[in-house]
Amino acid sequence: MIDLGGNMFRSPVPAGGAVLNGAGECTGFLAAAEWGLVETPVFLTSTMQVGRVYDAACELLMAEDPGIGADDVIIPVVAECDDSFLSDARRMQVSADDVKAALDEARTGAGGAAPAEGAVGSGTGMSCLGFKGGIGPPAGSCITIVVTDGPLDSAACVRLARRAGLGLARTGSTGDHGSGEIFLALATGLRTPRGVAPTGPEPVTGRDLDPFFAAVVESTEEAVLNSMLAAPTVTGRDGNYSRGLPADRVRELLAVAGRI
Amino acid sequence: MIDLGGNMFRSPVPAGGAVLNGAGECTGFLAAAEWGLVETPVFLTSTMQVGRVYDAACELLMAEDPGIGADDVIIPVVAECDDSFLSDARRMQVSADDVKAALDEARTGAGGAAPAEGAVGSGTGMSCLGFKGGIGPPAGSCITIVVTDGPLDSAACVRLARRAGLGLARTGSTGDHGSGEIFLALATGLRTPRGVAPTGPEPVTGRDLDPFFAAVVESTEEAVLNSMLAAPTVTGRDGNYSRGLPADRVRELLAVAGRI
Amino acid sequence: MIDLGGNMFRSPVPAGGAVLNGAGECTGFLAAAEWGLVETPVFLTSTMQVGRVYDAACELLMAEDPGIGADDVIIPVVAECDDSFLSDARRMQVSADDVKAALDEARTGAGGAAPAEGAVGSGTGMSCLGFKGGIGPPAGSCITIVVTDGPLDSAACVRLARRAGLGLARTGSTGDHGSGEIFLALATGLRTPRGVAPTGPEPVTGRDLDPFFAAVVESTEEAVLNSMLAAPTVTGRDGNYSRGLPADRVRELLAVAGRI
Amino acid sequence: MIDLGGNMFRSPVPAGGAVLNGAGECTGFLAAAEWGLVETPVFLTSTMQVGRVYDAACELLMAEDPGIGADDVIIPVVAECDDSFLSDARRMQVSADDVKAALDEARTGAGGAAPAEGAVGSGTGMSCLGFKGGIGPPAGSCITIVVTDGPLDSAACVRLARRAGLGLARTGSTGDHGSGEIFLALATGLRTPRGVAPTGPEPVTGRDLDPFFAAVVESTEEAVLNSMLAAPTVTGRDGNYSRGLPADRVRELLAVAGRI
Repeated sequence: MIDLGGNMFRSPVPAGGAVLNGAGECTGFLAAAEWGLVETPVFLTSTMQVGRVYDAACELLMAEDPGIGADDVIIPVVAECDDSFLSDARRMQVSADDVKAALDEARTGAGGAAPAEGAVGSGTGMSCLGFKGGIGPPAGSCITIVVTDGPLDSAACVRLARRAGLGLARTGSTGDHGSGEIFLALATGLRTPRGVAPTGPEPVTGRDLDPFFAAVVESTEEAVLNSMLAAPTVTGRDGNYSRGLPADRVRELLAVAGRI
Repeated sequence: MIDLGGNMFRSPVPAGGAVLNGAGECTGFLAAAEWGLVETPVFLTSTMQVGRVYDAACELLMAEDPGIGADDVIIPVVAECDDSFLSDARRMQVSADDVKAALDEARTGAGGAAPAEGAVGSGTGMSCLGFKGGIGPPAGSCITIVVTDGPLDSAACVRLARRAGLGLARTGSTGDHGSGEIFLALATGLRTPRGVAPTGPEPVTGRDLDPFFAAVVESTEEAVLNSMLAAPTVTGRDGNYSRGLPADRVRELLAVAGRI
Repeated sequence: MIDLGGNMFRSPVPAGGAVLNGAGECTGFLAAAEWGLVETPVFLTSTMQVGRVYDAACELLMAEDPGIGADDVIIPVVAECDDSFLSDARRMQVSADDVKAALDEARTGAGGAAPAEGAVGSGTGMSCLGFKGGIGPPAGSCITIVVTDGPLDSAACVRLARRAGLGLARTGSTGDHGSGEIFLALATGLRTPRGVAPTGPEPVTGRDLDPFFAAVVESTEEAVLNSMLAAPTVTGRDGNYSRGLPADRVRELLAVAGRI
Repeated sequence: MIDLGGNMFRSPVPAGGAVLNGAGECTGFLAAAEWGLVETPVFLTSTMQVGRVYDAACELLMAEDPGIGADDVIIPVVAECDDSFLSDARRMQVSADDVKAALDEARTGAGGAAPAEGAVGSGTGMSCLGFKGGIGPPAGSCITIVVTDGPLDSAACVRLARRAGLGLARTGSTGDHGSGEIFLALATGLRTPRGVAPTGPEPVTGRDLDPFFAAVVESTEEAVLNSMLAAPTVTGRDGNYSRGLPADRVRELLAVAGRI
């Protein structure tokens, strides 16, 4: 769950997307590409739960703003992970209350401590690189949401989104056939009220984007590694389990190799 | 509702998509673009009902095939029209039973008489060009689904999909900012069992695609006109109404102009 | 030849492109898509002459600015028409002097009378719809360059470019397999010095783009028709000839049909 | 220079492209994307020499086949590196003889020893990662041409091309603003005569593409490293020089770290 604060329908956020391997789903992706804006929080869930999360998002956001569905309709952004190794994909289990709880928590936490990583949210059922993680390289489900508070327009966001795959590559991904490597970048620095064009501050463009590009690659790589270091061993459906990465052993090996 | 018969999960259909103006939603679009396949029937509904239709589609299709969610997850194709002029967008009203009824009807009708056009299905609440229709040029919601039984691969389907906008242009569309002109083309001639590459018949390629391109343009134009000629006057929410095109008067005007 | 005045390397122009059918060439297209800028005049020529026009453009522009090739390299925008029905495509015939003359003429004419249309420039060898024209629907070579002085950013230019095909559709195009329907839109209203982000005026965005979209469709249609009305019968290589559209006869037919 | 043998106009090669950062040029890219075919050898040169290489390619290929320009025009594939640090970009220096020599050498070498790497061809003036190389990560000009003899169709080639950036990422690239990371993948296994659709062998699709994806990432990474290990120190224009990577010292450091 990513909520950027305020009412995103009243004050949409410049955004852009990119796809490395599109075997996945992110509702609202086409609309974000067209308008260069995201108008709702970003919801992340299990593949076959996308519908009910979309539905709950519509209801929750309408309850907050009488203009939604009246002034204009919304297309909530809901992206998915395939967690069917640990989770039973055939059981429709996410409820509207779950969605509300996630939204509330995202809003409460905004501006506070960094959000929890690893076996949390839609990452609860994910494994990567042979261990428990919170995302799925190399075999799949690597939705990446990049957020910056820099003054970037939607065209710059598209370029940022395209770099997320480079961060996954650093962790070993080669973009498997079955993988949903779908990337969305949002930038709040030029956010304006609905229907109002940004007039300032000066957007970051050209070569000044290079540090942002590098940051996307590095933070994507770091997010994957963090999700592995933060995740405990998890046992899921049918006794399937995913072993937590033994952080101490990793540290030992790095020390032996002179890398720390 | 478009169902191409058989079990689309077990026997997916080559497909490709294109976007003229992406202010809309079509779930499964990214996956279809990546794999060149559509694995579920195509569902059409009102914008904010997409979630519950996606959800109902998952449940219905899982009930028919124990491999869905077990062998692999599915991402149902659900596209939307903004019918909020006639329909109350704030009322979540499509039920799982509605989805089941639409799917049953699409299957029952397959191979029989041409399906009904105009104020039916997701077109019930749509107006176009100042009259009641079943789609929305020029101001929006012009999802176009092209289906052929020709032996076309997914790359050819992408090219077909790109021509749908030319048919809309013939009816007056200039691709408004708020419009969801999202196009999907499916071709059943090279359909094979899941995971099996097509080996025959010989695909239609190159200049032999030209008649298919022309057919897409012409049938898209015709579908818009048909939807207007078939639709009666409809009164919707808050007394809003959309007047049915008076076909007799159209015929008179065409006769006067020597066009028929 | 389209030159937007001033030194386009020192003051690039916001731009965006789109492709309906890409069986053609427009150098600089990828760079314009990435940076959202065009940095040279736009050159139009015959398909197999693209190389020598690109070469001449580099030489001409370097001669005008010592920073080109020193501060940064350039990729001239050169697009092509396949005029091989009237012109001998195997004869490499465009010279650097021809390129210089075209550039000079474009610059001299800028701000004055509307440029000549029809059998001029790269349109000299083109036919369309069975008559002599200056572009090639439906069978090919429909490069479209849209220019506005409105304050549009590159993302808006991409959307404008995507509408050019709708104008071609109005003249009968269905986007033949062999056709180069490649579109580029440029907007001078937010033009700034090289490396400087635009800070004003307020860009046109959202629904305010709708009149621009309509204008692209209408002016593309008009440009095709104008090119036909302006072009005389032309006889080319091997006795091949393309008959000029008899404007009087067209007017008669329109009068009979009550259309004028 | 990459020539795939035989007459590529008479027997085009299935191909697909992708762009990570498009600040570069590859003529023929749009046509390859549309038709899924490459019809000429692939030429690589310095940015501002693209025009004369395109021109020479047209002349050379026409001389070999009287049908080129008669049966159909060609758009040669010419891609570029910005070598202006070592090479004087303002001097137009590539001649038709140079192009002929490169084409002859590519053809003579085909099927023999692996081609030379490093400071050769268009890589002669390139540096990467602070040393002499034959390509330019992270700051630019990373044209990547992937060739396989596997039976892959154009849609699969597009997916292969998209993985080249992951290989560059492994060597440190973050896709700088000024970089031309343009990728083209070609597959000869389904090559057929001009205008003939492939009917066999069975194409590689679905999960069977995963080893190809991994191979693209690994061989792209390896090509960058090889180009550095093969390149000597080169001194270019104005005394600018690029130091060859000291391979012995690299080996020492790897041994100390226990990596070899």
